[in-house]
Amino acid sequence: MKDFAATLRIRIDPLDRECMEEAAAHQDRLLKPPGSLGQLEAIALRIAGITGQLHNRTDRKVLFLFGSDHGVYDEGVSASPQHFTRTLMEFYAKNAGCGINVLCDRVGVNLRVIDMGVKGLSPGIPGIDSRFRSMPEGTGNFAGENAACAMSKDEAVKAIEAGITLAGEAKREGFQIVGTGEVGMGNTTPAAACIMAALEVDDPGLAVGRGGGLTDDAFEKKKRVVAEALKKHRPDPSDPIDILSKVGGLDIAGMMGVFLGAAHHRLPVVIDGVISIAAALLAAVAAPLSKEFMISSHLSQEPGYALAVGSLASAPLLNLDMRLGEGSGCPIAMQIVDDALALMNSMNTFDGVSLESEYRKKLKV
Amino acid sequence: MKDFAATLRIRIDPLDRECMEEAAAHQDRLLKPPGSLGQLEAIALRIAGITGQLHNRTDRKVLFLFGSDHGVYDEGVSASPQHFTRTLMEFYAKNAGCGINVLCDRVGVNLRVIDMGVKGLSPGIPGIDSRFRSMPEGTGNFAGENAACAMSKDEAVKAIEAGITLAGEAKREGFQIVGTGEVGMGNTTPAAACIMAALEVDDPGLAVGRGGGLTDDAFEKKKRVVAEALKKHRPDPSDPIDILSKVGGLDIAGMMGVFLGAAHHRLPVVIDGVISIAAALLAAVAAPLSKEFMISSHLSQEPGYALAVGSLASAPLLNLDMRLGEGSGCPIAMQIVDDALALMNSMNTFDGVSLESEYRKKLKV
Repeated sequence: MKDFAATLRIRIDPLDRECMEEAAAHQDRLLKPPGSLGQLEAIALRIAGITGQLHNRTDRKVLFLFGSDHGVYDEGVSASPQHFTRTLMEFYAKNAGCGINVLCDRVGVNLRVIDMGVKGLSPGIPGIDSRFRSMPEGTGNFAGENAACAMSKDEAVKAIEAGITLAGEAKREGFQIVGTGEVGMGNTTPAAACIMAALEVDDPGLAVGRGGGLTDDAFEKKKRVVAEALKKHRPDPSDPIDILSKVGGLDIAGMMGVFLGAAHHRLPVVIDGVISIAAALLAAVAAPLSKEFMISSHLSQEPGYALAVGSLASAPLLNLDMRLGEGSGCPIAMQIVDDALALMNSMNTFDGVSLESEYRKKLKV
Repeated sequence: MKDFAATLRIRIDPLDRECMEEAAAHQDRLLKPPGSLGQLEAIALRIAGITGQLHNRTDRKVLFLFGSDHGVYDEGVSASPQHFTRTLMEFYAKNAGCGINVLCDRVGVNLRVIDMGVKGLSPGIPGIDSRFRSMPEGTGNFAGENAACAMSKDEAVKAIEAGITLAGEAKREGFQIVGTGEVGMGNTTPAAACIMAALEVDDPGLAVGRGGGLTDDAFEKKKRVVAEALKKHRPDPSDPIDILSKVGGLDIAGMMGVFLGAAHHRLPVVIDGVISIAAALLAAVAAPLSKEFMISSHLSQEPGYALAVGSLASAPLLNLDMRLGEGSGCPIAMQIVDDALALMNSMNTFDGVSLESEYRKKLKV
């Protein structure tokens, strides 16, 4: 029998605790009460642990935006026409003024648009990477009367490996921080299902939200669809490939690969919204050490987000009531990472200004 | 009798609702589900209401950092030597690598250091504005056995007018957004007292925090000091000048003036931590319309912050567990304001890409 989980046994070394201790000692020498920069200090420490270097920069930024379609769309779980996945992919690639285009331009993030299986999208469009398009029509419908698996285990593994490959390419190209994003009409449904499966949550009210915007009826339907699909498929909570193949999506699988690959290649990687965090959660189930490489950007409005983030190692930096997707939280959070590293790299020390050491002693809390 | 409140009757016109409606209609034409950018949309709308223009920029940024000393320091409410106020003021002015120096350099914020009454600080130091230094030794001790008023009503009004003057100068210099910050050993004590007085809160446990870092004993003492001072002085909750003169600080009064002046001159103005929000709250008591011009940057660790922010019009954008002061939350939040305006200014519309109008109709939530 094929060992599907071999891909998940990718090597991830722990953070460099020695370097983190040195970074913490440096932070305490800076001109401020120890700990007073809160999460900004924690980010600088974590990145020191990732790279093994005291001082770091994240000037070179990349964001992988995965597009895919979802069979479960047919259950009426989305308010948008399905061909919007394709249309938006073309807009992203043309830098046609979508939210993520504007934010990436402003912050200086290299946007990579990846076709994981978008219906009707031709291969070979400039600006769209179609190397990993092994299911051109997207996933199967995992709900409804003729419920099938979303994909085979083989397909799930291939999609994860796509993400791992992309993270490796990012490392070789010299990127210093990676973001994750997605587009795919209906994809908050598999995201909620994956989160509920991994965390063994039965109540869809805790994880299912209105996505891009649903009527009350459609929202109730969506909750039923997720609950029934989980009841039917019974994915193994400890097996992310089983979860992905039964109720997942190609975008979630691809992003899961980016989280694993970033950890393997020792790159900090930013979580966007609920679909991105579903992928992060599955990566954490497969390889708990990968959590340490993740930075949560913003508290998404989708309820599954709050459910998942508690299992990860990083609290969201921003609270902006966003629910756009596209990776839109990542460029915003990457600026805060730059701020955190600038403080670590450029603040003066007590020694540097010969200030009394009493401050340090007195303010140690 | 002198009309102390004349200063507070500064003219503030309401936001331009017509322009905000036009901005909201434009936001709904952009390539996204309506409302999906959450606070980023709200910020762009609010700034349109402030300037009366649909499209705005906040490239030119200024931050006013007010230094002052506090008589209540003598009660043992701070863990730091009092002369650190002076030392830090000199560092800020020299751009010597304090947190706010690094953040202002990174984000492109013009830092203005204002001496409102810092003990032992000589006038005429390059980079320090000492025009408003009318109480060179700082405030009186409003607590303890020989409790006095922090300042006279006349001094409070002068300090508020300093902030109004600075906001006017910022407007004339072409700044488009203003930040507020402070330094002053012991100043979380008057901040907590002002917040409790304005909101008529009796329990110091709700508003008093550990500031830069206090032992358990000193923390209990600080709560007693605040509760007893409020009991003794009984400031009038509806009269910010009474509150300031009895239990306030010159930094708080100066920042209150900036909030009023920014609203008068139609500039968005950013709140930093608990001392800044105490000033914002007093400005809102004096002139409720001023609330609409304020943007909360981050949820401070000091408990008084959460108490005060509920009375204002803007939820904090960031949750970074910061408690440094110096205005350090402002440059970080100003980047997010820039993001919000870039999205408003540069995103494409459905018309612009000839996408079906069904999206707009369907996704209206």
